[in-house]
Amino acid sequence: MFVVIMAGGAGTRFWPRSRRRLPKQFLNIVGERPLLRAAVDNAIGADGDRSRLLVVAGSAHRPLVERCLPDVPPANLLYEPVGRNTAPAIGFACVEIARRDARAVAAVLPSDHVIGDPPALRAALAAAASAAADGAIVTIGIQPTRPETGYGYIARGEQTAVHGGQPVYRVSSFVEKPGREQAERYLAAGNYFWNAGMFVFRVDAMLAAIRAHMPELAAGLQQLAEALGRGDSDALARLYPALPAQSIDYGVMERVENAAMVPASCGWSDVGSWAALPEVQPLDAAGNAVSGDALLVDTAGSVVDARAGRLVAVLGCRDLVVVDTEDALLVVPRERAQEVRQVLALLESDGRTRLL
Amino acid sequence: MFVVIMAGGAGTRFWPRSRRRLPKQFLNIVGERPLLRAAVDNAIGADGDRSRLLVVAGSAHRPLVERCLPDVPPANLLYEPVGRNTAPAIGFACVEIARRDARAVAAVLPSDHVIGDPPALRAALAAAASAAADGAIVTIGIQPTRPETGYGYIARGEQTAVHGGQPVYRVSSFVEKPGREQAERYLAAGNYFWNAGMFVFRVDAMLAAIRAHMPELAAGLQQLAEALGRGDSDALARLYPALPAQSIDYGVMERVENAAMVPASCGWSDVGSWAALPEVQPLDAAGNAVSGDALLVDTAGSVVDARAGRLVAVLGCRDLVVVDTEDALLVVPRERAQEVRQVLALLESDGRTRLL
Repeated sequence: MFVVIMAGGAGTRFWPRSRRRLPKQFLNIVGERPLLRAAVDNAIGADGDRSRLLVVAGSAHRPLVERCLPDVPPANLLYEPVGRNTAPAIGFACVEIARRDARAVAAVLPSDHVIGDPPALRAALAAAASAAADGAIVTIGIQPTRPETGYGYIARGEQTAVHGGQPVYRVSSFVEKPGREQAERYLAAGNYFWNAGMFVFRVDAMLAAIRAHMPELAAGLQQLAEALGRGDSDALARLYPALPAQSIDYGVMERVENAAMVPASCGWSDVGSWAALPEVQPLDAAGNAVSGDALLVDTAGSVVDARAGRLVAVLGCRDLVVVDTEDALLVVPRERAQEVRQVLALLESDGRTRLL
Repeated sequence: MFVVIMAGGAGTRFWPRSRRRLPKQFLNIVGERPLLRAAVDNAIGADGDRSRLLVVAGSAHRPLVERCLPDVPPANLLYEPVGRNTAPAIGFACVEIARRDARAVAAVLPSDHVIGDPPALRAALAAAASAAADGAIVTIGIQPTRPETGYGYIARGEQTAVHGGQPVYRVSSFVEKPGREQAERYLAAGNYFWNAGMFVFRVDAMLAAIRAHMPELAAGLQQLAEALGRGDSDALARLYPALPAQSIDYGVMERVENAAMVPASCGWSDVGSWAALPEVQPLDAAGNAVSGDALLVDTAGSVVDARAGRLVAVLGCRDLVVVDTEDALLVVPRERAQEVRQVLALLESDGRTRLL
């Protein structure tokens, strides 16, 4: 099985630690390793076969990728000249893998999520790979633990197989982020799973699905495959920007007939904002997620990232986020942490691009 | 009239901007000038006679005093080898002034308060100086504007004179910091004034009062006066530490028979903590007191000091204090700003003296 780590994201929700030049996947938001490094290690294990590991990232972040993954062969590091969402990125990876093995199975995984139980993830991926061997496009469904309204859900259909002790289901449907009541119904129903953006498929099956549902993308990928086959190294810069910017979920997954799902309980979190850190990090006795040189007095439920070489003293606060960096500091109530984009919009309109 | 600015304080409530090596009076907590500089300018005006201006400060802060007040003759800068509270400091200044003019009138003023209306202060001081000329020890009573429980009060007695249009009263009594209900009664009664630590007296009258009520201090000051008269420059380091550490309020003012009071409405604030900054600083439309490179979004009633060369972004906060410095940052709700000493106690017990 090939593993493709999707590292092209440019999220803003971890500002001020994340910046345009340093997106979330390159940060050690949790623990010591950058999330991208952890994603690689989680997917293939410490001794995994790097020759079948690919990473798709933005070309602007090439030095970060190389520093983060010195053990991955350079030919396996794919760089998008511009971001075009996930469908072109996965198509690009499929083209590259198909040149090596047209019927290979590939697992596509995010680079900026946290996996608490990597062996459980790898077991689910192995089952999904078995299920994918006969042509299904398999998604990993995360067993929900709360009525989350921030994720898309996968409605599970009937069970079709068992691989390595793991059940495989038909996908009944993909559903958009629900409202609160809907999410509570999904949780209670038991047959709804979180869509974590993890897919396993034979590359010829995915390319066929793209031909069927995204013909414009398929045509562009065909041109790209031919040019790369000719050794035309300029093709990427010329062809990639013209590919249609679309997500694989909307462009392909929601349309294919042969979608399957393997459930997983692998301690997954997308760590969507500073507010989510307490889900994935050891807490102190008052429920604070603290990193670095922080001094908390009578403070609870807070997130304090104090890794900029300066003491951060927080006294008498509840559910607050404080993030210190060398040139910018953020203070926001935890429940409003996702609104950090408002700060970025103001910085942009003030022309303070250095801070973005 | 001589003016004596008391700059020996070592308060901790403006940490992390204030430090042991850099107390509040040397900081530009409000506006551009250090509070000590503003105190001098407020007391004597921009063109005032520096030859009659004295400053009493801790010897550890000599370089700060000299940098802050280059226009004050070095002989007028008095340094305490150790802090012994206000009675010895005022006694020391009286000894120094008495060597020049034994019957001179002196006004003693704090260095770390804020005066919104300096001409009103100077008018009150002038009236107090007239009242002091016949031997009274005069205190400036600040007209209260709220039922403050953090200050001592002066109960006004009968009016005894008018000087320069300003009434002079006998002091009925000095009263300790009241409880809330008591403070409300004082405010409603109209004859209670805040004790701001501003006194005006003839130095021979003050030295006589010290002889009467603090004989041990008087004896020490006598030795000091004789030694300084002999040109014994080591006397201060030898004698000063042995003086009894006592406040002038408790040691003298509350005991003298001839205490008088001149009321003043001069926009006074002792700026006792970060929480008090909005009293003395222009506010933005949402009632925030902001300095430096701060970006506030949907934030109100807060104090943000962002003068450490870094952007401080505060989103969605109410009544919060955020103070950034090069090596330490403080976040605390405004209503708990006075508890910053808890942080300092922990830093001290951790041996992090560089940060104190």
